[in-house]
Amino acid sequence: MKSDDPSAGIDRRTLISGLAALPVAASLLPRPALAQGSSSSAPLPSWNDGPARQAIVDFVRATTDRSSPKFVAAEDRIACFDQDGTLWVEKPIYTQVVYCLDRVPAVVAQKPALKSRAPFKTILSGNREAIAKLSLHDLEEVLAATLTGMPVEVFQAEVNKWLASAKHPRWKRLYTDLTFQPMQEVLQYLRDSGYKTYIVTGGGQDFVRVYAQRVYGIPPEQVVGTMGGTKFGYAKDGKPFLTKEPKLLLDDDHAGKPQGIHLMIGRRPRAAFGNSVGDREMLEYTGAGDGARLMMLVLHDDAQREYAYGPANGLPDSKVGTFTQALYDEARKDGWTVISMKNDWKRIFAFD
Amino acid sequence: MKSDDPSAGIDRRTLISGLAALPVAASLLPRPALAQGSSSSAPLPSWNDGPARQAIVDFVRATTDRSSPKFVAAEDRIACFDQDGTLWVEKPIYTQVVYCLDRVPAVVAQKPALKSRAPFKTILSGNREAIAKLSLHDLEEVLAATLTGMPVEVFQAEVNKWLASAKHPRWKRLYTDLTFQPMQEVLQYLRDSGYKTYIVTGGGQDFVRVYAQRVYGIPPEQVVGTMGGTKFGYAKDGKPFLTKEPKLLLDDDHAGKPQGIHLMIGRRPRAAFGNSVGDREMLEYTGAGDGARLMMLVLHDDAQREYAYGPANGLPDSKVGTFTQALYDEARKDGWTVISMKNDWKRIFAFD
Repeated sequence: MKSDDPSAGIDRRTLISGLAALPVAASLLPRPALAQGSSSSAPLPSWNDGPARQAIVDFVRATTDRSSPKFVAAEDRIACFDQDGTLWVEKPIYTQVVYCLDRVPAVVAQKPALKSRAPFKTILSGNREAIAKLSLHDLEEVLAATLTGMPVEVFQAEVNKWLASAKHPRWKRLYTDLTFQPMQEVLQYLRDSGYKTYIVTGGGQDFVRVYAQRVYGIPPEQVVGTMGGTKFGYAKDGKPFLTKEPKLLLDDDHAGKPQGIHLMIGRRPRAAFGNSVGDREMLEYTGAGDGARLMMLVLHDDAQREYAYGPANGLPDSKVGTFTQALYDEARKDGWTVISMKNDWKRIFAFD
Repeated sequence: MKSDDPSAGIDRRTLISGLAALPVAASLLPRPALAQGSSSSAPLPSWNDGPARQAIVDFVRATTDRSSPKFVAAEDRIACFDQDGTLWVEKPIYTQVVYCLDRVPAVVAQKPALKSRAPFKTILSGNREAIAKLSLHDLEEVLAATLTGMPVEVFQAEVNKWLASAKHPRWKRLYTDLTFQPMQEVLQYLRDSGYKTYIVTGGGQDFVRVYAQRVYGIPPEQVVGTMGGTKFGYAKDGKPFLTKEPKLLLDDDHAGKPQGIHLMIGRRPRAAFGNSVGDREMLEYTGAGDGARLMMLVLHDDAQREYAYGPANGLPDSKVGTFTQALYDEARKDGWTVISMKNDWKRIFAFD
């Protein structure tokens, strides 16, 4: 076990590199991006015709047509989706990390002794250069202080409140508005075809569960993420409650993704979608099963409409959502389909 | 919200009314101990009229009737069931422990060095007196040796093979035949009423998942149990696989049950069923929520048709499925319903 931090699944090596781009404040204008419930006769309307869209349609047809040799029984239709960079924007830094940094003032208000201590003092200073230089250990301390130590219902309320007001620095929109419309359509298309859709994220399981239902149409029990322990206790009125503990149960990234899938689902997915080296083992595990399987990787190659990054694009590795050349080569070799945001998607967001 | 259950859109009443028109004489068909897919106009046919049956029917009506002040939205209908002693026989010892003891010869054949070592040597001797005296530590060693160290698929195949032949000493039947028919009817009745049914067991999550679908109609992802870690690796042909590791992630008993429910489901159940002190915290946690809640405990008070045991019966504590007087008192105080096997159940097993 690498650490006792429940959010250790986040690739933290330099995830604070984008901190300088963050806004200082956000105004109130809640407008959640709801998962669209409709399916038309032509699935995936936000996708251009091409090999990526075709791979999805072919897979669904092959596995749901009873006359197909690749037909899959309804109960075995499991599809897993990474979140950051696959279902929504992950730049300049992971949304959950923004949340943790934004929570620091409130945490310090409750525990004034933290005010003069290193990472908290730096974050409170608002000095973006200094914040960007925080060590991994410093960041872990911030994550533990902001994600644990409170009853689960209190945490859920805090996340909900933050999501209703915090805005992305580039689009000036709620983070939950920044889901990829083409991927929302894939989720809906698969569900309409009898698939159970799961999120399998390196982010905190409890964090993503707060909004997964209204944003993606995915219930809490179908969110697999980095898992922390809880502690059972009784309130003064005798009512039992669970407190989030700074104890890591499973780091749901890289090899942790198939481990998390086994733990939470108990069977091998038929389809898996990712966008970085953290998803490689999940796609390998999915592809190692018999029959029809669908493995896809989103390539961020659209600097104009979203972002372009990663060595597979010939661009520097920004350490968030790393898509290496080796991953690209493995995709080609193993028949995984790479989705070009630039070429395969007619639009990126529902508001486009 | 839309359910991800692919059959959620099917009108079950229509299906059932259509069944009556079928020419096949259902009574002539063999009646396996499988979860029955049918519900009649009178639910829970193996239950006698009384407060226990009434509590279940009242709860379902109150939470599924849209005009009821206690109506519960479909997505919040979660019901959790302990397994050992609640859904099937747990005497003379837990079925999974029988499996582990039965596996010892095969494990020793693979690792001959174990043959002369303490717990394994004792078990191989067949000396029941000596086996009954094994310490908890000895037993844990046996569990680790028989439940871990192999790929998950190998484990599943071994359990399936054992279940197909091992017989209970009293009834001389497969263990999977020894589920309680009245509880199978509760599972089905709740599912027919839009509830997601979960097993929440102190037994091994991977063990119970092997047969939960065919025996209870519960898919692997709806089995919450004691959880072990897995290790991700690659076979010689490059295919990835998971190995079961002797690493405890969560002991799903007592306080571990609400913890496991939070981890695996992420929301509080509406109904919980148990039979021992290991289920107390799960029932307390369920009861602490708002609105209609159903908490029930099976009391084993039928020595003739099954077993009678536990201090709440005025009988000695046999350490398996302990139902203490304190638990009984808490049930009365908090409005939990105690199910008397003797008085509430017309029959115990499907083969009765």
